[in-house]
Amino acid sequence: MRNMLAHKSCFLLLLLFLLFTSQFSSATKKTLNKDKPCKRFVLYFHDILFGGSDVANATSAAVANETGLGNFKFGKLIVFDDPMTKDNHLLSPAVARAQGFYFYDMKNDYNSWFAYTLVFNSTEHKGTLNIMGVDIMAAQTRDLSIVGGTGDFFMARGIATFVTDTFQGAKYFRLKMDIKLYECY
Amino acid sequence: MRNMLAHKSCFLLLLLFLLFTSQFSSATKKTLNKDKPCKRFVLYFHDILFGGSDVANATSAAVANETGLGNFKFGKLIVFDDPMTKDNHLLSPAVARAQGFYFYDMKNDYNSWFAYTLVFNSTEHKGTLNIMGVDIMAAQTRDLSIVGGTGDFFMARGIATFVTDTFQGAKYFRLKMDIKLYECY
Amino acid sequence: MRNMLAHKSCFLLLLLFLLFTSQFSSATKKTLNKDKPCKRFVLYFHDILFGGSDVANATSAAVANETGLGNFKFGKLIVFDDPMTKDNHLLSPAVARAQGFYFYDMKNDYNSWFAYTLVFNSTEHKGTLNIMGVDIMAAQTRDLSIVGGTGDFFMARGIATFVTDTFQGAKYFRLKMDIKLYECY
Repeated sequence: MRNMLAHKSCFLLLLLFLLFTSQFSSATKKTLNKDKPCKRFVLYFHDILFGGSDVANATSAAVANETGLGNFKFGKLIVFDDPMTKDNHLLSPAVARAQGFYFYDMKNDYNSWFAYTLVFNSTEHKGTLNIMGVDIMAAQTRDLSIVGGTGDFFMARGIATFVTDTFQGAKYFRLKMDIKLYECY
Repeated sequence: MRNMLAHKSCFLLLLLFLLFTSQFSSATKKTLNKDKPCKRFVLYFHDILFGGSDVANATSAAVANETGLGNFKFGKLIVFDDPMTKDNHLLSPAVARAQGFYFYDMKNDYNSWFAYTLVFNSTEHKGTLNIMGVDIMAAQTRDLSIVGGTGDFFMARGIATFVTDTFQGAKYFRLKMDIKLYECY
Repeated sequence: MRNMLAHKSCFLLLLLFLLFTSQFSSATKKTLNKDKPCKRFVLYFHDILFGGSDVANATSAAVANETGLGNFKFGKLIVFDDPMTKDNHLLSPAVARAQGFYFYDMKNDYNSWFAYTLVFNSTEHKGTLNIMGVDIMAAQTRDLSIVGGTGDFFMARGIATFVTDTFQGAKYFRLKMDIKLYECY
């Protein structure tokens, strides 16, 4: 009886194993669960656009002007070095910096495209996360790709979900960024 | 006899298992087959450069001028929101938008560098693919990296192969993009 | 006795298997060792900024001027097509080109942000590596993400570590780039 059991369990194991390894034979079809990131945290992004004289407060500046293709700033390109805070108060301590750029890219609505790095240099985290994607401003939430990481976030990948927290004209806006990593090493 | 068989199959299994897990012990050396993407489709990219008055037709606009380093538009930077169609007809229904930018970056030939997002919002697909890389215009085909995805393309990675389909001066060009995903989740 | 052994080894195997597969059930938590890349090489990046008349020597050009936000060139955007050499001599044969852009992005210190492609077209290597991240110039070494690759570097990922090798004002600088791939296919 024990023989049979041992034999059967091995056979079952072999099947499981073949099933499992077959997933890796050519293209990868792993199972990642959107609801179960291996690391998650929320940060707020504060952007204060330079007006020409407010050097002390400003955190970003336009490097190329809008092009005239439509009325929604198409082509306007902004470089930023923005503080990231744990709550939505501009004056809370920055736990990271967001360094990169965005530009407006739609002629019949506001829409923008981001590429940037989250730079962590605190006792809690040291390292970076690199992010790119489109910020479909008309959508309630929008997902960008976290395409790599360094330091504490060595080789990480994931999704950054943006929600507009406030938009005070061109001068100041704040985004809630929900950082979800699905590949942690 | 059965004992021996059970024992042997277990031993074989253990060997297979060790072999398999050893691939993951330090750096990843998985086997991905270039000829077997887990998802593949072809789309055509249509770019109509804004001339100053053709707002209705234009899909892209220059935000920085060429620099004078050589005679091949070095540094000219274009932001685009281009329709993607299933065949090579400009007026076919767009199944996605390509939003991003490219710039010319060679002083002795035409060459460009792209970073953009494919935005899908149809009944067939919802989500984005984020792509970056160099478009070596002199080459018959050139490969860019698909570095991340969201929505239906959650966490995807792959290769986008460009082929120039037509190039009508600076005003209109069309690229065939062969989208091959090798990591699907 | 053999029965027992076979049974036990199968049970042990099952445990190992469950332990192993559980890592893949939701988010990926593989073990990558920072000290054991699957491929590694060092290249030197040479950047000679175009001054307006030195077309023959220049390898990069500014496409947007600094913005006046601070005194560290905030927003100045440079497109480059730079030679990569195996040693730190500018005139050594280029084994690859680095094509992309960087911009300055800090108001109280020099700091820059890079996105570029290493283009290999030699007998040794054909293909590309796509890289992005922040170049924290004040740090001794800084890590950027290698987010994808093509050709010989099909689907690669890794880390590019920058060290400033020389900085001769705005005109010429040289970076040592330590390219470490942790995902090789």
